[in-house]
Amino acid sequence: MPKEVDHQQRRAGIAEAALRLTVDEGLEAVTMRRVAAEAGVSLGQVQHYFASKDELLMVTLELISEQFTRRTGAAPAGESPRERARALLVQMLPLDEERSGEARVGVAFLARAAVAPRFAEVLRGGAAWATDFLVSRIEEGQRAGQVAAAREPRREARLLMAVVDGLTMHTLVGHHSPAEAEAALDAHLADLFGNTGSGCDRL
Amino acid sequence: MPKEVDHQQRRAGIAEAALRLTVDEGLEAVTMRRVAAEAGVSLGQVQHYFASKDELLMVTLELISEQFTRRTGAAPAGESPRERARALLVQMLPLDEERSGEARVGVAFLARAAVAPRFAEVLRGGAAWATDFLVSRIEEGQRAGQVAAAREPRREARLLMAVVDGLTMHTLVGHHSPAEAEAALDAHLADLFGNTGSGCDRL
Repeated sequence: MPKEVDHQQRRAGIAEAALRLTVDEGLEAVTMRRVAAEAGVSLGQVQHYFASKDELLMVTLELISEQFTRRTGAAPAGESPRERARALLVQMLPLDEERSGEARVGVAFLARAAVAPRFAEVLRGGAAWATDFLVSRIEEGQRAGQVAAAREPRREARLLMAVVDGLTMHTLVGHHSPAEAEAALDAHLADLFGNTGSGCDRL
Repeated sequence: MPKEVDHQQRRAGIAEAALRLTVDEGLEAVTMRRVAAEAGVSLGQVQHYFASKDELLMVTLELISEQFTRRTGAAPAGESPRERARALLVQMLPLDEERSGEARVGVAFLARAAVAPRFAEVLRGGAAWATDFLVSRIEEGQRAGQVAAAREPRREARLLMAVVDGLTMHTLVGHHSPAEAEAALDAHLADLFGNTGSGCDRL
């Protein structure tokens, strides 16, 4: 055994084990004991690094936030305000395995946050950032004449965030397919951003 | 003690205790032991009526479904397709205490259903009914010239369901107020159902 244990690495390994459990079985599966088994360490070691289950959950939330940020940064952004808004929004939809896993964790935390203010605060930070980003794209769209001037950018951004989280949940529980979720998002974006394919053309 | 124990009533009392715990603290708080304490019965009695925690949860889901159906049936329906769609949708938003409680339970079950197919199946039944109802209102709106003919009714119904569940979650975690959720829903309905106040007027 090495004399210097890599604490950082062991702590990360435990957090990743908690994340795997959440992805596969939901937050209810995350007990200190099961995380220890999943990480291949003792219960005492889990308790050494994480004082409570909530602390462990908080770190898994940070892990998926980092993963999301990394992927969003790497995704091609597109040129128009609509394409740039869409590039962010599709990263939130469960359209592949990585995003489905993140979405399962995200929904679990939303449910937890509905009764636990501490988690709500963490989620609020991420949501505020994304909402502000969308507000900016909608305002750009308004300056470019693609979004109706009378639309209230923040209200429309809130609606977009609701659309994408609602579609995500309904995809996860099997109300519809991932492709149907993407099509519904695109229908909504077409209405918001304008001319091509919008409902207005069709009235 | 009465000789004939009212089994039906005792079982309902246990289910209602589980519902109260879910509303206040989320599904994680629902253990057989805590439900027994909350209902004022012994652990053995809870186990007598409910073989597992999942069975208990299933019954709390039925309880809120009944409550929702009762309230929806009693709500004034309105005349136009849009008003009738709205009458259903606002019953799902957490705009008062009863609806907030239901919404907390609903979100908890959505999160559970994302990893537990048995719950997904139950939720799917309710969602399918509501989606079909909305498809019918959108088709009525199309016949009345209020909804653009080129809009695909089922896609738009799915989008509405996503909007209302997304807004519900984001209200519960405090991303925005209930009034802002209602305003965002109305902005979306205005786009879908037409002329007055729609984005199309403003382009």
